[in-house]
Amino acid sequence: MGQIAFDQFPLQVWSNLVTRHCRNMGARSFAYGDHMGSKAFRETIASYLRTARSLRCEAEQIMIVSGSQQALEISARVLLDPGSRVWVEEPGYALARDVFALAGCHLVPVPIDQEGLDVVAGIKRCRKARAAFVTPSHQFPLGVTMSASRRLQLLDWAQSAGSWIIEDDYDSEYRYESLPIASLQGLDVNARVIYIGTFSKVLFPALRLGYIVIPSDLVDRFLTIRGAMDLGPPSFYQEVLADFIGEGHFARHIRRMRVLYRERRSALVDNIRKELGSMVDVLGDQAGMHLAVTLQNTGSDVRIAERAARQNLWIWPLSLSYLGEVSRQGFILGFGSATVGEIPRAVRKLRSLLTSK
Amino acid sequence: MGQIAFDQFPLQVWSNLVTRHCRNMGARSFAYGDHMGSKAFRETIASYLRTARSLRCEAEQIMIVSGSQQALEISARVLLDPGSRVWVEEPGYALARDVFALAGCHLVPVPIDQEGLDVVAGIKRCRKARAAFVTPSHQFPLGVTMSASRRLQLLDWAQSAGSWIIEDDYDSEYRYESLPIASLQGLDVNARVIYIGTFSKVLFPALRLGYIVIPSDLVDRFLTIRGAMDLGPPSFYQEVLADFIGEGHFARHIRRMRVLYRERRSALVDNIRKELGSMVDVLGDQAGMHLAVTLQNTGSDVRIAERAARQNLWIWPLSLSYLGEVSRQGFILGFGSATVGEIPRAVRKLRSLLTSK
Repeated sequence: MGQIAFDQFPLQVWSNLVTRHCRNMGARSFAYGDHMGSKAFRETIASYLRTARSLRCEAEQIMIVSGSQQALEISARVLLDPGSRVWVEEPGYALARDVFALAGCHLVPVPIDQEGLDVVAGIKRCRKARAAFVTPSHQFPLGVTMSASRRLQLLDWAQSAGSWIIEDDYDSEYRYESLPIASLQGLDVNARVIYIGTFSKVLFPALRLGYIVIPSDLVDRFLTIRGAMDLGPPSFYQEVLADFIGEGHFARHIRRMRVLYRERRSALVDNIRKELGSMVDVLGDQAGMHLAVTLQNTGSDVRIAERAARQNLWIWPLSLSYLGEVSRQGFILGFGSATVGEIPRAVRKLRSLLTSK
Repeated sequence: MGQIAFDQFPLQVWSNLVTRHCRNMGARSFAYGDHMGSKAFRETIASYLRTARSLRCEAEQIMIVSGSQQALEISARVLLDPGSRVWVEEPGYALARDVFALAGCHLVPVPIDQEGLDVVAGIKRCRKARAAFVTPSHQFPLGVTMSASRRLQLLDWAQSAGSWIIEDDYDSEYRYESLPIASLQGLDVNARVIYIGTFSKVLFPALRLGYIVIPSDLVDRFLTIRGAMDLGPPSFYQEVLADFIGEGHFARHIRRMRVLYRERRSALVDNIRKELGSMVDVLGDQAGMHLAVTLQNTGSDVRIAERAARQNLWIWPLSLSYLGEVSRQGFILGFGSATVGEIPRAVRKLRSLLTSK
């Protein structure tokens, strides 16, 4: 999970850009940079997000961060107080819950069904939550895409309750059956959405680059907190990446990887159907670099994952994504770094683990 | 202030290392790295700190961060709670105060005299403070070096009060009249000191690399907070810098810069003596990349600095470094990026600003 096909990364193009930027470092490249991030890079991202993700945004709203984790941390520091109540998806992303819990917030798990976050259930549990954390494009971990009506419900709730929506759009560039879908932020006319994106999936995690799209009237508050936290992002990779995007390499890379990951996804799904049949249900395979399988017969997914790891098969137990009662057992299976040739053997290994339990 | 002689940086050597590392990126260089930072880099730093700064430390205690600001932020999150009382130097470093204030702490200003922090005054004001923030090698902004007896007093207080000392050693590599002095951390036998260092001054700020040396029994707590904040530092520059240090370029650069900055420092002091004479006192010129001048006749240093900026002379008013009553007016003068040729004119400009007030 979270692994990319690093051997497919256009390293030659990238290292040429890195070398060029390094040799030409001038006074500004040595100094403390803009706390929001490099202006040219933010303009490139704003333009990309307007086109590819239907966001309503200008460069002035974009803050460069070291990835979605820092984006969450800064958002929590600005928007939440100890005791604030926060909706989190159930099941959901544990590293987001960690941020809210460390900020002293009270977490309210809101169930995910086939349309995404069950907004009515959320309102019933805690109408007055200060914020909701959601992954509408490709829910983590179940992979559901939030339906249009749920999106409107969620935006309505935020507006009427005076709450914030934190939209984590971590892997929406890879969508296999349709065009990328519009972001929640793009539907929002009331500036209630904080949008978080990352280059960890679409390029590589070691970059440590992501961004927050901030409602205009909150930019100053984000900037105050961010300045005190780390003075701003390192400038070097921002400049390299601005050129990587500007010169068309980024779009080309996404197109190539979409084909590659779709093949890997299809190989994985086909093999699961063939080998595991009715033992599991497959969820969330229409996008991203992972899918979920849920177990028909409950068994301890944690115990199976531990046994799998001893056989060098790395699968992530679904039950760890629950805050409250675990209603599904199963696994999150990443296919980003698994070749089509490796997949059949891995799935057979999983079958033998499931049948020998 | 805070500017370096970037045109003296060995860019050719650096970009050769950058190119080499980029071309040879393997699987691990693309992935999420160690939350503490790269092991090889931390070992290099530990060995450097033991030799050059007399620290007692192992690589396991070193956490790589994006600079001293993030080091302060993480330390505050781990050690302090809203309402905690914290000693800060008066005058002192405003960006450190910001971190403690945003964490909801109560700041206790403790005066600086010619021996550094007045520990007895601190104890009188607030014996039970949870932590003390200090810059003992080259106090910011006055440049005093904390005396040996004050260091022992401070360590005694921390041990008996169960408090923490946060030692920010931001520019101790450049010391002009004597060998670098030992750190406070190296004197501490009770593991009460959190030591913070940065490459922003000794290399360049845009690197965004620094480190915390953590008492062994606190490492896990630092790691939990840090993981939730940003998952860890980017790996690329860590690997480059580990080689830059390991191949001897770092030591060579420091030796060259110490000579260069000493010349600039002497030119600045000589010109101040000649042009400003008894109008000012010079403080803290024995180390670092800045010194302080205090005004004999009080005038508003802020107003003078504003007028200076309009004439393209950038000087930092000392009064902004006070939390309470301003007992000295004057300026912090950075000489890192000012050549020996430029200094006389700049000092004459300052004189005309001071005499025309």
